Amino acid sequence: MTTVHRAGPLFTDLYELTMAASYYANRVFAPATFSLYIRPYRAERNFFVAAGLEQVLDELASFRFSAQDLNYLQTTGRFAADFLAYLTQLRFSGQVYALPEGTIFFADEPVIEITAPIIEAQLLETFLLNTVGFQTMIASKAARCFHAAAGRPLIDFSLRRTQGRDAGIKVARSTFLAGFEGTSNVLAGKIYGIPVSGTMAHSYISAFDSELEAFAAYADTFPNHSIFLIDTYNTLAGAQNAAAVAKEMKQRGQALIGVRLDSGDMAGLSRKVRKILDDAGLHAVKIFASSGFDEFKIAKVVSQGARIDAFGVGTKVGVSADAPYVDIVYKMVRFNKRNVRKLSPGKSTLAGEKQVFRKSDREGRYLEDIIGLRNESMQDGRPLLEKVMADGKILRAHPALQAVQERFKKNFSSLDDRYKSIEDHIAYPVKLSRRLQELQKTS
Amino acid sequence: MTTVHRAGPLFTDLYELTMAASYYANRVFAPATFSLYIRPYRAERNFFVAAGLEQVLDELASFRFSAQDLNYLQTTGRFAADFLAYLTQLRFSGQVYALPEGTIFFADEPVIEITAPIIEAQLLETFLLNTVGFQTMIASKAARCFHAAAGRPLIDFSLRRTQGRDAGIKVARSTFLAGFEGTSNVLAGKIYGIPVSGTMAHSYISAFDSELEAFAAYADTFPNHSIFLIDTYNTLAGAQNAAAVAKEMKQRGQALIGVRLDSGDMAGLSRKVRKILDDAGLHAVKIFASSGFDEFKIAKVVSQGARIDAFGVGTKVGVSADAPYVDIVYKMVRFNKRNVRKLSPGKSTLAGEKQVFRKSDREGRYLEDIIGLRNESMQDGRPLLEKVMADGKILRAHPALQAVQERFKKNFSSLDDRYKSIEDHIAYPVKLSRRLQELQKTS
Repeated sequence: MTTVHRAGPLFTDLYELTMAASYYANRVFAPATFSLYIRPYRAERNFFVAAGLEQVLDELASFRFSAQDLNYLQTTGRFAADFLAYLTQLRFSGQVYALPEGTIFFADEPVIEITAPIIEAQLLETFLLNTVGFQTMIASKAARCFHAAAGRPLIDFSLRRTQGRDAGIKVARSTFLAGFEGTSNVLAGKIYGIPVSGTMAHSYISAFDSELEAFAAYADTFPNHSIFLIDTYNTLAGAQNAAAVAKEMKQRGQALIGVRLDSGDMAGLSRKVRKILDDAGLHAVKIFASSGFDEFKIAKVVSQGARIDAFGVGTKVGVSADAPYVDIVYKMVRFNKRNVRKLSPGKSTLAGEKQVFRKSDREGRYLEDIIGLRNESMQDGRPLLEKVMADGKILRAHPALQAVQERFKKNFSSLDDRYKSIEDHIAYPVKLSRRLQELQKTS
Repeated sequence: MTTVHRAGPLFTDLYELTMAASYYANRVFAPATFSLYIRPYRAERNFFVAAGLEQVLDELASFRFSAQDLNYLQTTGRFAADFLAYLTQLRFSGQVYALPEGTIFFADEPVIEITAPIIEAQLLETFLLNTVGFQTMIASKAARCFHAAAGRPLIDFSLRRTQGRDAGIKVARSTFLAGFEGTSNVLAGKIYGIPVSGTMAHSYISAFDSELEAFAAYADTFPNHSIFLIDTYNTLAGAQNAAAVAKEMKQRGQALIGVRLDSGDMAGLSRKVRKILDDAGLHAVKIFASSGFDEFKIAKVVSQGARIDAFGVGTKVGVSADAPYVDIVYKMVRFNKRNVRKLSPGKSTLAGEKQVFRKSDREGRYLEDIIGLRNESMQDGRPLLEKVMADGKILRAHPALQAVQERFKKNFSSLDDRYKSIEDHIAYPVKLSRRLQELQKTS
């Protein structure tokens, strides 16, 4: 495992620091609770998959300003010396309640709640929104693909067009977390232990005098790890060439893993290619497909009876192209022992420290969620937010990424299929507890 | 200046490494030229702004596999020991031609061309597509806002919802490069020396007993750097409160910089707030606006006669929401002294090493571009691609970011306004030289 670089406390909007300076100067140190949640914003997202908590906890546990950070802040000419001295000492000392990664949740439900002296809690805002918002958005998009693929393996191919470097690494992790089987991203393989896979590019074929020669050369290098890209010149001729080389490999006791389609009518081509491979006795050679796949295109080719064994999923999932941001917010819900409510139209927030209770039927199928008060108990509802940090200390080791994926799969199988629709908005029932509703009247 | 972490050679798709292994095993070492360009893909993008070259050159100049990288590759079980030993020694030794950052360019024109032994050139593909594609996309989106704002300052407010950490930093840089005046992003301020600015959040107001008290407390801390957020309860009442505090500040010899609108009808509210401020004699207090701005919303409120002095531009620009990826590709155009052409329908590439020649009128206004051969000369066309790296060595110091912004502004003012339309697709004329056309027939 490689150490992942921390974002550091300067990964923030300036106003978080100026507000902190003003709280400091005005002696405002009381504890505040902030709630991180996604507002309802797009009909096409019926559910979300929690992701990003591991990075959040690592960052909070190591939160501190370096001498270099403080030097930079000093150069902005905005901050008093006593405040900068205060920042030197500042550590995160708060309490964190969170949905474990891989948990299915819904709009308006808190993903994370943080209670800490107001300066500490406020300074984290930008980092939390960025980290949890992006990773949750990608995991949720990936889960939609996982559903559409109906059991066919999915591989993340998005690295070349993600929005920057960190996005590339986090997309590999967030898609794996939500059911993908691997990634083409070598650095993510190294950092997170995600299985890596890949095929070949058109340029490889072009570097040889013929496609046949290129396939043969590649098979020489990777007698048991080869997937041939067959659409450089003509997909069906490419399939014939692949079959010819695969038969030679078979005679040598080797096995071609598969071929990859990268353009054209995927459903029709996949059937023709399957026939070419089967006619050559190559029933075990698999057909991979790439080229603009997302949940919509996967669902379409699956419904057309495509003979595709696995999908390489790239750009459109790596940037969540149909919904490239979530309306995630971080709102103060309690300050100095007083519950805080915001009433702006369309942007109202619910006062109070909360818990999400999930009711299930006897088979474990989810029935409805109740957002209640943190200190409520509900006989027939399982509380979803767990205390994961106390006084700035992480309370348990991070689960392995594979375990997070298993949590996701278990959660996802408990969610009724109608809420997984990729086309229709069908709202899972989320209600407010009586006590939470009453608290709003008095806040 | 802080050191920016390198992506490293494992920031790549696995197939770049497996192809390299196969080239190595088959003794394929001849030089190749790859061309990086954006395919026409969206009617809403009439032009692009080149960005990302600085990072590309730093990465290429320091390209090397660490022992840890090679250990990881060894664990994948795919690579022979002699190939891994070869990677230990591998450095980038090639030639790089590129459009300087800040250059306006168009679809199909090469942004970067790389000539190197095929293994070196191939291994860079994923990194180059990711780096140049993302930063160019954001700079191009920012330039559209710069045009729509018609001289009003723009500040990047996107950090909380960019796609990950690296994106946040690069958005600050790419928007500044394309005419923005600052960013809320403190880390980008530290790394790139971009001016930082900010206001306050609604939670700050909520932490005090009244809005008036909150404004006064903030002004105490920042007597000359305050911008009050006035929409927490009611924008017009907020403007009255801001005016009251601003008058007290004035009496103390201090100056409120401005107020910020963050919700509601921006054009109407800005006029009413302007009147409140003017009636209080606060003509110098500026009105800032944020909340969902992109080039479309900026153009709309400007056309409605909004009295807004500066825009905080966030999420929609930070993720390029209407077009969250570009169809950028990296194609082999020459290999082993042979020009290479790809003919797949809709994905054809032009063979040969190229240059872009720009023709201007006497006032410097751009007339048309000619894509020609690198070794052509054109009397009335200025070549845009510059040789920036020779034998793996950077040929000149990076220009300061401010100088890149000046290049952008000069380029942009030379582009006729009709090509800057944010609504209509009006194609700037890009032609192929006769010699480039002839070369296609023989490739």
